[in-house]
Amino acid sequence: MNALDIINEKRRGRELSAEEISFLVNGYTDGNIPDYQVSAFLMAVCLNGMSDAETAALTFAMRDSGKIMDLSQISGIKVDKHSTGGVGDKTTISLIPIVSAAGVPCAKLSGRGLGFTGGTLDKLECFPGFRTDLSDDEFVRQVKTIGAAISGQTDDLTPADRKLYALRDASGTVESIPLIASSIMSKKLASGADTIVLDVKTGAGAFMKTEEDSVRLAKAMIELGKIAGHRVSCFITDMNEPLGNAVGNVYEVMEAVELLKGNGPADYRELVLSLAGEMIFEGGKADSAAQGRTRAEKTIEDGSALEQLCRILDAQGSNRKYVLDTGLLETAAEEETFSAPHSGYIQGIQAELVGRAEAALGGGRETKEDPIDLSVGLTLLKKTGDYVQEGEPLLAVHFNSREKADAARELLAKAYTIGAADPGKKQVIKKRPEDFG
Amino acid sequence: MNALDIINEKRRGRELSAEEISFLVNGYTDGNIPDYQVSAFLMAVCLNGMSDAETAALTFAMRDSGKIMDLSQISGIKVDKHSTGGVGDKTTISLIPIVSAAGVPCAKLSGRGLGFTGGTLDKLECFPGFRTDLSDDEFVRQVKTIGAAISGQTDDLTPADRKLYALRDASGTVESIPLIASSIMSKKLASGADTIVLDVKTGAGAFMKTEEDSVRLAKAMIELGKIAGHRVSCFITDMNEPLGNAVGNVYEVMEAVELLKGNGPADYRELVLSLAGEMIFEGGKADSAAQGRTRAEKTIEDGSALEQLCRILDAQGSNRKYVLDTGLLETAAEEETFSAPHSGYIQGIQAELVGRAEAALGGGRETKEDPIDLSVGLTLLKKTGDYVQEGEPLLAVHFNSREKADAARELLAKAYTIGAADPGKKQVIKKRPEDFG
Repeated sequence: MNALDIINEKRRGRELSAEEISFLVNGYTDGNIPDYQVSAFLMAVCLNGMSDAETAALTFAMRDSGKIMDLSQISGIKVDKHSTGGVGDKTTISLIPIVSAAGVPCAKLSGRGLGFTGGTLDKLECFPGFRTDLSDDEFVRQVKTIGAAISGQTDDLTPADRKLYALRDASGTVESIPLIASSIMSKKLASGADTIVLDVKTGAGAFMKTEEDSVRLAKAMIELGKIAGHRVSCFITDMNEPLGNAVGNVYEVMEAVELLKGNGPADYRELVLSLAGEMIFEGGKADSAAQGRTRAEKTIEDGSALEQLCRILDAQGSNRKYVLDTGLLETAAEEETFSAPHSGYIQGIQAELVGRAEAALGGGRETKEDPIDLSVGLTLLKKTGDYVQEGEPLLAVHFNSREKADAARELLAKAYTIGAADPGKKQVIKKRPEDFG
Repeated sequence: MNALDIINEKRRGRELSAEEISFLVNGYTDGNIPDYQVSAFLMAVCLNGMSDAETAALTFAMRDSGKIMDLSQISGIKVDKHSTGGVGDKTTISLIPIVSAAGVPCAKLSGRGLGFTGGTLDKLECFPGFRTDLSDDEFVRQVKTIGAAISGQTDDLTPADRKLYALRDASGTVESIPLIASSIMSKKLASGADTIVLDVKTGAGAFMKTEEDSVRLAKAMIELGKIAGHRVSCFITDMNEPLGNAVGNVYEVMEAVELLKGNGPADYRELVLSLAGEMIFEGGKADSAAQGRTRAEKTIEDGSALEQLCRILDAQGSNRKYVLDTGLLETAAEEETFSAPHSGYIQGIQAELVGRAEAALGGGRETKEDPIDLSVGLTLLKKTGDYVQEGEPLLAVHFNSREKADAARELLAKAYTIGAADPGKKQVIKKRPEDFG
């Protein structure tokens, strides 16, 4: 078996065997197959696609390239959740406390933000002292003790995926349903959960720009789950405008805490409760997703979800006082508003531009090594479907540098579209698991 | 402009501008764009194709990456010839003496063999002392003095093509009409000729396996010629069985000399005379290709073509005695025949296997640095359409090592197909320039 023959086969449109795919993945991970061969292979996959069997073989080869988390010591059905990433997506911070308060153990591995999308680990680090580097033992022990833990993925999990992802990013081979699906699913399968709930974002601010592509990605991951013997439930959710009102690490954390206190914007609340309902159902703590949702609402009303977040903070090196009084969290030194240039209905808010504005303020990074300023961000005061008077504030900018604020304003000037017609409010949930049969 | 955007555009199937293509080619040649990006780009070209304008831009960018030969001091129309490569293809060694004897100046740059196909430079080096490393000045002066020179392409000619070709070879991105056409044409345009005659081989032993692909390649090169303002004439010729009877450097040289002495196998003679007729016509020394062919035949009959080869040898460091008596050339120490396993008509001879058998004898190389044994080879005693009795010799193997001869025999055992029906003789010329309008 040699790499060149495999690449040529793929270029000619022939189906590869599982052995051929794992030969390539292992050879690349070990450094025996050069990156210029693998990037050519990845481009052939982008353009010729992959069969379900090939995609599964790629997923399993990446899953098996490193450690696989052993959650067997945790009793109950372990349900994991993954979002394909968007702007203002602080879902995990509310969701894990709710679901674990409802009795479903949550062993959540999360990532960091890159480009214009944020990451849960960065957000959690707004809580002073919060540790995202739990050892496997600490992680499992915490889930057994308090029912939940949120930590960073370690380097020994799916090293093949990490190496391939970096190469895809650098070689123009990111946009491929089989490559995206196998990358996500290899990590989820290596994370050791029994059941996986996926939030596939769709729209201008998401990785998948069209609902059609999002549905294709969802179906590919459901299929992969079937082949791997894991239940996979998919939601398709809107990412044309940012989720909720807060964009920027500390502001998103505050909004996530507000939700657990019974407040928070309607779209964010709708998404969290929908995902939570499904996870509680999948975790065997409700007879249906609807019952799960009712159960989720109750954990907010009775304060048990908020108590779960407090416990997570206490267990992971921070302190519950930051949840009980988010005024203690460090925010930006200055604030100013951005006003409507003319009256009308908000037709849309380009999530990507808002995300890039937050990055311009210092809250995002271009490479994994860049430091970020967790205290800057934006608060959307008007969302799609709201009516606004000329001169009325559209959003507040929280900043530490005049120069960066000006750069952000330049991006924000193009983010809002205002027009005469009422477009109605955006529906955050576009498809639910039952829509996939 | 950046490489990643260009790759993504190509992946999405959009047409690139000449500026984008030359940015990539120059960046890669200069070492500023990494090979893993360029191999991904090349794979996108293999699968999404290139428009005529893109192919021309790629050709010109490669042509302009190095020196362009200046043949302006040579009077008359300079006609160059290129073959896409095959087994037993010693055409240049007969053709250049004939065409230059007919008064058309021939400034021929040639290459070396690689894999199972031979190269003119290796063959010429069978003549003791023959120099293939003429300086530009020596090369031009020789064409002015005696009407012909055959030398090696120097490294400063189309360095971009050389670098891209090596990457294509190593990344499974060889098979692409626009990439093949632009690679050939960039070299031919940099070689400085006015008019180019192309011999596109087709069949199992050729790079282009089907006549359809060969026609597509021919049309792409004719189109490139039009855009570049150079006349390009194409032949499509058979490469299912080897050309002529001799395969292997010294045996091919002997056969080429025999042709100039009025002998030689019919298929080889037909190809050389057809190409010569076209070149003489294109070079303005005949009113039609048919008249050119008659003129070519005359150079053989009157000995002027043989005299031209003698002059080339004398001018390039060898000695005409090796032409006048090819028995002086070094041949293999041993010879044995390979016999027909049963009686019948030869249905076909797989050129690739014969070429690989010659390489196995020591007459081919896998990398450009490998030394080769010029004295080994094969003589085909029967060709397609011939009737053979069981036990009658099919071919003679000329070898220096028992072990290598056995390896060659193993390949040769599969090369001949013998059956009851008479398939008729192979037609060497499948399409002539007039077939392309």
